[in-house]
Amino acid sequence: MTRRITIADIATAAGVSKGAVSYALNGRPGVSETTRAKILAIAAEMGFVPNRAARSLSVSTAQTVGIALRRTARTIGVEPYFMELISGIESTLSAGSFGLTLQIVGTLEEELEVYRRWWAERRVDGVFLCDIGTGDQRLDFIADLGLPAVAVGGPIDGARFPAVWHDDVAPCRDILEYLYTLGHRRVARVAGIPGLLHTAIRDRAYTETAAGLHFTSVATVHSDYTGEQGAQITRRLLSSSKRPTAIVYDNDVMAVAGLGVAHELGLAIPEQLSIVAWDDSPLCRLTHPALTSLTRDIPAYGSTCADALLTLIGADKDTDPPGTEARTFSLQCMPGQLSPRGSTGPAQA
Amino acid sequence: MTRRITIADIATAAGVSKGAVSYALNGRPGVSETTRAKILAIAAEMGFVPNRAARSLSVSTAQTVGIALRRTARTIGVEPYFMELISGIESTLSAGSFGLTLQIVGTLEEELEVYRRWWAERRVDGVFLCDIGTGDQRLDFIADLGLPAVAVGGPIDGARFPAVWHDDVAPCRDILEYLYTLGHRRVARVAGIPGLLHTAIRDRAYTETAAGLHFTSVATVHSDYTGEQGAQITRRLLSSSKRPTAIVYDNDVMAVAGLGVAHELGLAIPEQLSIVAWDDSPLCRLTHPALTSLTRDIPAYGSTCADALLTLIGADKDTDPPGTEARTFSLQCMPGQLSPRGSTGPAQA
Repeated sequence: MTRRITIADIATAAGVSKGAVSYALNGRPGVSETTRAKILAIAAEMGFVPNRAARSLSVSTAQTVGIALRRTARTIGVEPYFMELISGIESTLSAGSFGLTLQIVGTLEEELEVYRRWWAERRVDGVFLCDIGTGDQRLDFIADLGLPAVAVGGPIDGARFPAVWHDDVAPCRDILEYLYTLGHRRVARVAGIPGLLHTAIRDRAYTETAAGLHFTSVATVHSDYTGEQGAQITRRLLSSSKRPTAIVYDNDVMAVAGLGVAHELGLAIPEQLSIVAWDDSPLCRLTHPALTSLTRDIPAYGSTCADALLTLIGADKDTDPPGTEARTFSLQCMPGQLSPRGSTGPAQA
Repeated sequence: MTRRITIADIATAAGVSKGAVSYALNGRPGVSETTRAKILAIAAEMGFVPNRAARSLSVSTAQTVGIALRRTARTIGVEPYFMELISGIESTLSAGSFGLTLQIVGTLEEELEVYRRWWAERRVDGVFLCDIGTGDQRLDFIADLGLPAVAVGGPIDGARFPAVWHDDVAPCRDILEYLYTLGHRRVARVAGIPGLLHTAIRDRAYTETAAGLHFTSVATVHSDYTGEQGAQITRRLLSSSKRPTAIVYDNDVMAVAGLGVAHELGLAIPEQLSIVAWDDSPLCRLTHPALTSLTRDIPAYGSTCADALLTLIGADKDTDPPGTEARTFSLQCMPGQLSPRGSTGPAQA
């Protein structure tokens, strides 16, 4: 674990008093310009993280926050979610003159190394943590590092930094009750990656909602979120003798792929199969019929996450630095709303 | 125009000789540690860009390159192109321990201001220039600034920095000749944004190729690349009395939207309409039928662009800094290949 550099460390290295270091870092009189320059150079070299007051010395602040994504080039490209999230984050960061650094990593170890290096070298003032997992090892690692962070997802039990999240439970209930009301009794769900927190939350919400209704079958099949797997799983589901009359997809890309498979098999939509997508994106309105979707405003979500991170790192100079309470808050965004379109209709006997 | 800070400027500001500045910046003996620290602090404050030899002094190098994209959150999210490009860029940058800073801007003025600020504050060592326009004002601005840059697109006449590009002419010819061979005589193209260089190149290539064949009509309609416009234009084209029997789309998202409109109008694909997409992405294989596409390896393209930029900024410490020739080279990548799939077939009378 990398220990944070303190003013005392710099004072020792520079051979001056802690007071002199403080004066130098805060741009206040009390040290000669030569000493100030020396202290600044040493502080920068040691990777010292200035406090808010010193932030005005542009030489010693990153004014940048980071995102490390553990996804492949291909899967990250096709899912509108990440770019919409990043766009929303960006809009708020730009307004606060903060930059965004993006890194795509292959493994958890690489990701942790990125955080460690970013923080040790003062390349970022904070990070966004995406794809929160159940029992996510990154949470304690980052909290121990002291790196300011906001989790994009939640809620997280015992989180040591803020989480910004949408309720996944109510939408699951809304979707199942809507399909039940339309007369569907055999329903399947093509779910996301099993280790992710929101997948687990949706898994449980579906099971609990289904238990209160009278479905003949409610299947859940996990996937990697790609269109390829969405298509394969759909083909398998629709080739069974007791095929579902409605399928819910955990993202938009898989729902589009599922619609393609339904067309391929000659099934009329929605007469022979109803399709619901999670995360409405323009993709869901490009298809025919347009896809009934769980609509969330992802750019707005990104913007809220960025606000939370800027507050946490004290970028808003007009306010006091946040206390412990603010550092661990959990912020629930507007839950998604079901947008019914042409891909859902009454079940036929 | 921001003038680049020179060693002489730093020497004047620090009240030392140019030799002392050079020793300090290059980490060589010849100055006291106090003087070195003072010079480094002043150089950093003035936004001085160190040469390669000084790059090892981590305090004075950004180790970061930037991309500013002038797109809206929604359009950037739905097009796989940018994330695939960024992923490819990232893979090469990571290997060289460089970070990528992303900024989404609203206007040309904002974009130029971002470059100016990034370079003045030493936040980046270089930038990628996307969406190259015809008569692009950014080219001279960036060259005058002295900011190392690579144009993602081209070829650019009289470019003052490297351009990495795909040939757009041969694919246009391939597509038109393929459709002609299939018997199509009324062909339309839903083109991209008219001010972009590659749109202009494709416009000309289509016109020239068509002139050598015997089409009844070859229409080009420009769009903003969104699915919405792709759908609207397709609906208009297919509602005319002399509707085309084949439509070529300048991106994948519009082609998917066009397929949706064809389904909506009850047209059989490919019997009544052939569809060709430009830029194959997983999207093109999710639909039914799968879309015939112009396939290019966009992550590999991003990787090549990143190699070019790292070479330009001299990140490869084993080689000499590039001469004028290397700074203005034009690098042509593998041209795209047509991948025929189910969305194209013989024209029916």
